[in-house]
Amino acid sequence: MISPLLTDLYQLTMAYGYWKLNMHDREAVFQLIFRRNPFRGNYAVACGLADVVDFLKNWRFSAAELAYLATLTAANGEALFPAEFLTYLAQLAFRCDIDAIPEGTVVFPHEPLVRITGPLLQAQLIESTLLNIVNFQTLIATKSSRVCQAAQGESVLEFGMRRAQGPNGALAASRAAYVGGCEATSNVLAGMLYDIPVRGTHAHSWVTAFADEMSAFEAYAAVMPQNCVLLVDTYDTLTGVQHAIEIGKKLHARGSKLLGIRLDSGDLAELSKKARKLLDDAGFIDTKIVASNSLDEYAIRRLREQGAQISVWGVGTSLATAYDQPALDGVYKLSALRDAEGQWQYKLKLSEQAVKISNPGIYQVRRFFQNGQQVADVMYDVELGIPVEPELTSLADPATTKKLTSHDASVDLLQPVFRQGKLVYPAESIHVMRQRAMQQVSAFVDVYPTAEYAVGLEKSLGELKQKLIHDVSINLKKIT
Amino acid sequence: MISPLLTDLYQLTMAYGYWKLNMHDREAVFQLIFRRNPFRGNYAVACGLADVVDFLKNWRFSAAELAYLATLTAANGEALFPAEFLTYLAQLAFRCDIDAIPEGTVVFPHEPLVRITGPLLQAQLIESTLLNIVNFQTLIATKSSRVCQAAQGESVLEFGMRRAQGPNGALAASRAAYVGGCEATSNVLAGMLYDIPVRGTHAHSWVTAFADEMSAFEAYAAVMPQNCVLLVDTYDTLTGVQHAIEIGKKLHARGSKLLGIRLDSGDLAELSKKARKLLDDAGFIDTKIVASNSLDEYAIRRLREQGAQISVWGVGTSLATAYDQPALDGVYKLSALRDAEGQWQYKLKLSEQAVKISNPGIYQVRRFFQNGQQVADVMYDVELGIPVEPELTSLADPATTKKLTSHDASVDLLQPVFRQGKLVYPAESIHVMRQRAMQQVSAFVDVYPTAEYAVGLEKSLGELKQKLIHDVSINLKKIT
Repeated sequence: MISPLLTDLYQLTMAYGYWKLNMHDREAVFQLIFRRNPFRGNYAVACGLADVVDFLKNWRFSAAELAYLATLTAANGEALFPAEFLTYLAQLAFRCDIDAIPEGTVVFPHEPLVRITGPLLQAQLIESTLLNIVNFQTLIATKSSRVCQAAQGESVLEFGMRRAQGPNGALAASRAAYVGGCEATSNVLAGMLYDIPVRGTHAHSWVTAFADEMSAFEAYAAVMPQNCVLLVDTYDTLTGVQHAIEIGKKLHARGSKLLGIRLDSGDLAELSKKARKLLDDAGFIDTKIVASNSLDEYAIRRLREQGAQISVWGVGTSLATAYDQPALDGVYKLSALRDAEGQWQYKLKLSEQAVKISNPGIYQVRRFFQNGQQVADVMYDVELGIPVEPELTSLADPATTKKLTSHDASVDLLQPVFRQGKLVYPAESIHVMRQRAMQQVSAFVDVYPTAEYAVGLEKSLGELKQKLIHDVSINLKKIT
Repeated sequence: MISPLLTDLYQLTMAYGYWKLNMHDREAVFQLIFRRNPFRGNYAVACGLADVVDFLKNWRFSAAELAYLATLTAANGEALFPAEFLTYLAQLAFRCDIDAIPEGTVVFPHEPLVRITGPLLQAQLIESTLLNIVNFQTLIATKSSRVCQAAQGESVLEFGMRRAQGPNGALAASRAAYVGGCEATSNVLAGMLYDIPVRGTHAHSWVTAFADEMSAFEAYAAVMPQNCVLLVDTYDTLTGVQHAIEIGKKLHARGSKLLGIRLDSGDLAELSKKARKLLDDAGFIDTKIVASNSLDEYAIRRLREQGAQISVWGVGTSLATAYDQPALDGVYKLSALRDAEGQWQYKLKLSEQAVKISNPGIYQVRRFFQNGQQVADVMYDVELGIPVEPELTSLADPATTKKLTSHDASVDLLQPVFRQGKLVYPAESIHVMRQRAMQQVSAFVDVYPTAEYAVGLEKSLGELKQKLIHDVSINLKKIT
């Protein structure tokens, strides 16, 4: 259970400000988006909603947490938060509406993965936690999906715990890696908590614990004949393979079998080919070759191109930490706020770069399909609506529009998750999420192996945004 | 509290094997080392021991955990672990000896940060968790130390939660960043759990929640006059600075003051110089300029070289995820095991690269000083001992030795933490660790700004290692 104090202090100082100014119950809309596809790819896989749900279901300040807040002081030594505010927090119950895109869905920059509608103070206080959860799990599910794409249907196992970013970094990574398409994890606790298959046999230390490799293999086969994958590179890989073959023969004679060997160092392409030949020549055509050691989607693709004879890929650090890009750039922006009269005011934050200007409004994302293939995503404002044949305004270049005519189906991606603080979204099996991701990613990369996918604002929303940018700029010019 | 199931499955299959073969209580020594200094630097800062202690103090398999293990099956459908083994795990109490280098100590590749001595099965089961904790926190403490060095004594605040790797990724990062030298964090829960100062004022959403920037600043100054740092870049940075100055005048008139402004986008060097001039010209010479936005040690150094007028650095993603190298390459190697007769057998794992061959023995690290400056670290075997003027054998090139003659003091780095499973290490304040890190890093980089520091094996240990390599190789040749 995640504490509501897992937040940035400025969320609490702002919350206090809103409360003090009696703005805390104004209805606000925030949207959680990311700005760029990670790993220089052209898609991402949404993940983390289950943990968001778990966090919000239990969102309540405990006495100990409030006692801690009471100790905080400003630079001049005064209490940061007066007692009346802490009393207010003590009775606070979550009552926002949450809409979100289901886990395992293929998503794109600027699409709200989560939309939060509710009292300004509450929607503000949960920002940092939601970003933390959704940024990381979406990042890892996407990485996993890329690694699994590179493996082209062969098994990928996630092995990254030992170098993951803390215990939860490891657990969340195992979970998201499974959603993204991995077949199993080595992380036993993740297996227990998330219903993910777990895998593992032995390490180098097993081999070094015995007088020699052959004794170590004999011992392992004796105690675990039904789960025998032998790690062959402790001393010399090809000698190790020969030892494993000897053990395989003995297992066979006892009615069991050598499931696999594992390579963990050296030139995996060459070694796997030689190992495959040794195994095949000895009749072990079913014995699999598992490989590990600094693998990622690029290494797997390269090894496959080199004809490596590897059928199970153990991927660790690069997957569990998203080594080449260890953070997703998700942000959480205020996009609408009711004024004192109850009228919606749409909000934006300016930037010199067009794509960094926030998107005002209350968004839904509609995905259009033709012959079962997704053709475009259109973000529209729920108050403005969307025509049957919408025009799509580019986010990067608002002058570019495109009419969507050829589509035969559509679906709104954001689903109701909480209503007035009450959970309305049914718990979803992690296996369903994984199937969704695998199916959607395969279909997507078939049509868009590298190309940008069309995502834009519905035309009337695009115009509204341009008008707001104009108004804010005029206002700025008046001042300066 | 971390579950003992936060481990790789192969630790449990090996544990079962050791138990089945009645090797589980053989006394073993494992050593946790890293192989390369992170970030292409020349040192690291040890961190994570407090969490290791917490994990080991509570290390016990619960009924629910054992029930889960009972459900695991091998490929052929048989139970992976028989009931008798799970009964054995149920009564298991931790009884290893743990020695470790205190948090905040400057450390180097190949030095055991943690040494584990105890029953083979227990020492094996805790491997993955110890690696997870120590790898990540050491990585972040090192990153933090580098960022603080770049800031040359000016304040660094850690702001990374929203893009950190999960809730614990954020918490552990906040903790390690403080140990490494940061002054405070934005993470409120880290403040509560670890006694770290917390900081924060307001975000862009505060500004956009009001009709215009001036109203937003007025409101903030009214509700929090004692903690007023204004974020000035929501619409236009220098206009924002002028607005902040107006507010500063009002605060001053009310007996309070404008503590600072924060820049979060654009050319921070140019904007900070212009902002400084505007502030100084208006008499706000004490008002600080806080900067954030994709900062790391390189950006800070560059900005300082450009004459940026920034006195507080808010560092987020690059620090909390160690963005440019998000994992430390720590490993955990069996280095000695008593045989059935109770004699120590020293163990090693071969590799084609000399520095990847594991180090056999039971190690202590002695650091030598001259005139208060560290001059070399010598790893020695506790059974072989170390002479007063040791000879140091290079790890990269075993033929290179160097006699250490000029030193006037020395200290053994590994400290007893657990004895027979009982905690003997006094709880240490995080502020003490931070002081240690800041003092040791400053002293170190003064003398070794970039150069490699001398770390090697004591001569007799170096010879013993070479003999073992020779024996294992001869043995391999006999087989092949």
